[in-house]
Amino acid sequence: MAFTERSAAARRAILAAARESFATTGYEQSTIRSIAAAAGVHSSMVIRYFGSKSDLFVATVANESPIPEVGDLDDFGARFARRFVEYWEGSDCAGPGALLRVAPTHQDAAEQVQAVFDRLIAGPVRVALAGDPDVERRVALLVATAVGFVYTRHILRLEPVASIPPEALVPALAATFQSHLTGPLAAEPAGRGDEGRGRE
Amino acid sequence: MAFTERSAAARRAILAAARESFATTGYEQSTIRSIAAAAGVHSSMVIRYFGSKSDLFVATVANESPIPEVGDLDDFGARFARRFVEYWEGSDCAGPGALLRVAPTHQDAAEQVQAVFDRLIAGPVRVALAGDPDVERRVALLVATAVGFVYTRHILRLEPVASIPPEALVPALAATFQSHLTGPLAAEPAGRGDEGRGRE
Repeated sequence: MAFTERSAAARRAILAAARESFATTGYEQSTIRSIAAAAGVHSSMVIRYFGSKSDLFVATVANESPIPEVGDLDDFGARFARRFVEYWEGSDCAGPGALLRVAPTHQDAAEQVQAVFDRLIAGPVRVALAGDPDVERRVALLVATAVGFVYTRHILRLEPVASIPPEALVPALAATFQSHLTGPLAAEPAGRGDEGRGRE
Repeated sequence: MAFTERSAAARRAILAAARESFATTGYEQSTIRSIAAAAGVHSSMVIRYFGSKSDLFVATVANESPIPEVGDLDDFGARFARRFVEYWEGSDCAGPGALLRVAPTHQDAAEQVQAVFDRLIAGPVRVALAGDPDVERRVALLVATAVGFVYTRHILRLEPVASIPPEALVPALAATFQSHLTGPLAAEPAGRGDEGRGRE
């Protein structure tokens, strides 16, 4: 193998070991040393390729993102909702789930959540919405909605959120995400924003 | 004082001591014994009036609810948003904040969150929306949105949610809550729900 192939193989092995470790052992208990051992490399190689444990975590999550490319904004809400629900109903979310579980009481984990969101969603959405004066509010609504669903459904298991079938959740989330991204926002801060849409 | 007045005074003293304890010491560290001592009553009186520590917590929160009466559904989103933001920006939310912080890693705390939500919001909203076939999805969206904002803004302090001024947050939340309650929901589960609203 050429040098670059060897290094690519080592990176893949490290990412796979890290994913496994974060998912089964949790973020806190996973160490660079144990991940390196599982990947069959020296700890220094993990540091060289990925930096810190937290950087490695971000790389692991970014590598199997629950967030699709932003692409066409007009159907991003639907694409995001499908991938988001599929991801969190599946078995690959144990590592990110462990991170979100400890983040409220561990500042470093909360910083990793921030890094993951910046890289995977806030950054790309800011680019896609460039020029929109409400871009920060739109990103905030999007992130808060996504985080809210993960906490209520998968971490706290609050009812009725926990029991909604995935196929009923996807369209509701799709509409909510899309509305946050491209729908009319509420009245400007000065307004009262309570025009009351009425029932239809 | 008549018996009922004495018992009302004792209840108030217990609730005040519990609120103070949950806010300053946190949910986990607060004990029936320490709350009783602070209220100047015997532990057995706390148990008699409120049941367990977790029941006492629910009573404490219910007593200064961040959720207004549902009342007229057509402007409940706006009223809820104003009260919700005011509450979480204020200083009275330390106890509930402490509960939400430990809930992801403490099942009993998660059950208290469920009890608070059932009592303060899911129950009343179910009554107000009786007959609506989508009531469970509406309640779920409402609860997930509210929880999402508390976790992103106040617990994880994720940007850009953490930095949005309250006066910009209120109308955005008002519109979102109202839409979840009385707006058109996305297509039925069988549909793809991605008609794409387009930008307006």
